[in-house]
Amino acid sequence: MLLCEIGNTNIHFYKKGASWNKKATIKNILDVKERFYYINVNEKIKSKLDSLENAIDLEPFLKIDTIYKGLGVDRVAACKAIDNGVIVDAGSAITVDIMAGGVHLGGYIMPGLFALQKSFSEISPRLDMTLNPNIDLDIFPQNSLEAISYGAIKPIILMLKESQKDKKLYFTGGDGKFFAKFFDNAIYDGSLIFKGMSKVLKTKGLI
Amino acid sequence: MLLCEIGNTNIHFYKKGASWNKKATIKNILDVKERFYYINVNEKIKSKLDSLENAIDLEPFLKIDTIYKGLGVDRVAACKAIDNGVIVDAGSAITVDIMAGGVHLGGYIMPGLFALQKSFSEISPRLDMTLNPNIDLDIFPQNSLEAISYGAIKPIILMLKESQKDKKLYFTGGDGKFFAKFFDNAIYDGSLIFKGMSKVLKTKGLI
Repeated sequence: MLLCEIGNTNIHFYKKGASWNKKATIKNILDVKERFYYINVNEKIKSKLDSLENAIDLEPFLKIDTIYKGLGVDRVAACKAIDNGVIVDAGSAITVDIMAGGVHLGGYIMPGLFALQKSFSEISPRLDMTLNPNIDLDIFPQNSLEAISYGAIKPIILMLKESQKDKKLYFTGGDGKFFAKFFDNAIYDGSLIFKGMSKVLKTKGLI
Repeated sequence: MLLCEIGNTNIHFYKKGASWNKKATIKNILDVKERFYYINVNEKIKSKLDSLENAIDLEPFLKIDTIYKGLGVDRVAACKAIDNGVIVDAGSAITVDIMAGGVHLGGYIMPGLFALQKSFSEISPRLDMTLNPNIDLDIFPQNSLEAISYGAIKPIILMLKESQKDKKLYFTGGDGKFFAKFFDNAIYDGSLIFKGMSKVLKTKGLI
């Protein structure tokens, strides 16, 4: 059974424990001939998906106990996989959601590392540099590259520590592995969203 | 005596305790007929300034004890005004510099609030919203606007608290007043850079 998570930039595919990515284009959707279950946050592709007979939208089945208005379906899917903990999807944005006893307590969004890097480059041509992920976060920076790398990475880590308290952190997304290494009681799971999708499919008797 | 701080967006003027801003254009520089001392980080205006007889660049006089390479002249000027403390210039970027006993210990840079807002809008049209500066930072957000406002503002505050420790915070810049209110042992001083410039002028016997 093929699962698809369609974002604004990429499509993430998952089948029998294997996962792979393609660019989020209509052609890459039409190339899929077999039946697939998907979630989609990409408005540009939405109407095309609706018209496909082999594509089944999982969004109507992805409900979560929350008072949060407008929680993205990708975040709902990841939260579905975890009953207790802090879920961090570190991609173009970093979304953070807090789950306790199967209930979603709220969440927040920070720009991802690439978005921050782009932001620096737009503020000043002097700050148009590739962030250094290996800087020492325990000593004050001594040049511009250290200064923007420290100022991009450390605030995210402090925020996640503040949200974590005694809970477990579950990282997913492109930069999830990078951030996970800064924490105790944390794991990286690149298939968190697919685990949530699978869970719902099982609950609904669809697989 | 007229002082000028020229940034990438605005020119800040200061004379006898009064300050005012204009857009950073060559015309607004040429309109100044009296003699003025300036610092400039705007590359587009640099050669024009060099050619003006009534404009005196203070950069050669603004030296600070530091191992930091490439510290912007605006940051040096603000640091010159403070011997001990954490200096935060919250503008299009938020620069943070640590001074102890007149020595600069290092510093870092974060994107400013407007840059973060722009970054969210580029990540997804769903996040194209004006940040709400009045959200409660002690409860988890329950909608997208709260989520991006919390995710923009709170990491900056946590970073500044981490850098502050037992030191005093000195805020300046457009968003300085906003951030100052979250801290004990903190003041806002919109003329910090001009105070540093004046100090150097006095030291060098130029005024």
